[in-house]
Amino acid sequence: MPISGLGVARVLDSENPEFKKGDLVLGMTGWEEYSLITDSNLFKIHHIDVPLSYYMGILGMPGLTAYAGFYEVCSPKKGDYVFVSAASGAVGQLVGQFAKLFGCYVVGSAGSKDKVYLLKNKFGFDEAFNYKDEPDLNAALKRYFPEGIDIYFENVGGKMLDAVLLNMRIHGQISVCGMISQYNLDIPEGVQNLMNLVAKRVRMEGFLTPDYYHLYPKFLEMIIPHIKDGKIVYVEDIAEGLKSAPAALVGLFSGRNVGKQVVAVATE
Amino acid sequence: MPISGLGVARVLDSENPEFKKGDLVLGMTGWEEYSLITDSNLFKIHHIDVPLSYYMGILGMPGLTAYAGFYEVCSPKKGDYVFVSAASGAVGQLVGQFAKLFGCYVVGSAGSKDKVYLLKNKFGFDEAFNYKDEPDLNAALKRYFPEGIDIYFENVGGKMLDAVLLNMRIHGQISVCGMISQYNLDIPEGVQNLMNLVAKRVRMEGFLTPDYYHLYPKFLEMIIPHIKDGKIVYVEDIAEGLKSAPAALVGLFSGRNVGKQVVAVATE
Repeated sequence: MPISGLGVARVLDSENPEFKKGDLVLGMTGWEEYSLITDSNLFKIHHIDVPLSYYMGILGMPGLTAYAGFYEVCSPKKGDYVFVSAASGAVGQLVGQFAKLFGCYVVGSAGSKDKVYLLKNKFGFDEAFNYKDEPDLNAALKRYFPEGIDIYFENVGGKMLDAVLLNMRIHGQISVCGMISQYNLDIPEGVQNLMNLVAKRVRMEGFLTPDYYHLYPKFLEMIIPHIKDGKIVYVEDIAEGLKSAPAALVGLFSGRNVGKQVVAVATE
Repeated sequence: MPISGLGVARVLDSENPEFKKGDLVLGMTGWEEYSLITDSNLFKIHHIDVPLSYYMGILGMPGLTAYAGFYEVCSPKKGDYVFVSAASGAVGQLVGQFAKLFGCYVVGSAGSKDKVYLLKNKFGFDEAFNYKDEPDLNAALKRYFPEGIDIYFENVGGKMLDAVLLNMRIHGQISVCGMISQYNLDIPEGVQNLMNLVAKRVRMEGFLTPDYYHLYPKFLEMIIPHIKDGKIVYVEDIAEGLKSAPAALVGLFSGRNVGKQVVAVATE
């Protein structure tokens, strides 16, 4: 069995009357050139006037994740102070742009100078910083949020979460999407500042995107015009060829990729 | 300046026309026999057909804390599996009784055999255990909640919270009232299992009772009949005389008290 992942593919043949030869589909495909797909979660792609790779990112799971995690899990208000970690990633870059469109003040953290440049100059974040250059994350957040954080979109966990907890505003919200800094640790780092949830009456909520699949049509309706008129941009890191896939996967954990990591198995 | 604390006192004299000599009041009084109160948060006591000490507990801040933390912060449903830590304390004993009245299944943890006995035989908890007898809190919770926990009323933090996070049900809720196990540590214990917030889509929310003061009349209206008809009971640990106050305070951190700790400075 090959490893599987979210992919876009063209139908060569199907026993399912919903899919005809030549249709483009989005679903779990194998890390292989030809896949036999029996999974029922397969979506036909209708809008093809955007890059097809977008269906693995801005128009796929990461896009819906950013949409649900920001608009549904949080209750953003115009003028809110928003912080996004792993902000140049597949999800983070969209959360920041959604928050800007909504009238929030947005700061992102990332792990390289190039990513910080992108955040400020391509995605329109108000500020951004390289967390690897900050020996004291609490001090960094105090610098960027002298009045505190209303909404934290959590992608990394560990020390960053601990620093954020020290800087939340009263009735702030933490939308927990992931904790990538913790996935490869045998024992997760301990988070020590949870008492701040009480002092600041903070709501911290985890979510999974499949709970929001019903919003996918509404999400596409909102985002496709923004992509077409350039109000929302998306950066991908496309590795060419199936052979590049293992290194691309491993690279995610050291932050080698810039933007959504995609592997182009075949192009047309 | 004496230490201050929530107290019930009788007015000897007042320059405020709202208070007359002989009135009973609830507010921040000093650890002293006679207090000069200038604080505007002073409430006149109207219902005097219940023990006056109840105004420091079930009819005061701890009562409103249990009420707001259970009914307002959580969204309980009949049949929910509810876990309360520090369950025999001033707040916990009420949360458990509210949850039982609501039709939930309720388990409490406490730190002595006597407290566990009280939980099961006086407060009507379905089950209770002594956390000091459980070398593996995760295993203990799995035993009492084979199907997981819908609502956790958090009073202790640290290792208990970590074990609870491993046992939450999908869309579970954690109402964070306090973390007494952490208050006297120089560095709080790290909580490692927060990724479970994502996998189980759990909402964790801190709260402070003053945000709910407007519910106090509604709360009294609900609870006084329950006290009178014996549907809700309350256990207090009354230390006699001002001299007993310092030991009573220190005892809270080792769990020496059973039920709400009150100091009777003077009785009528």
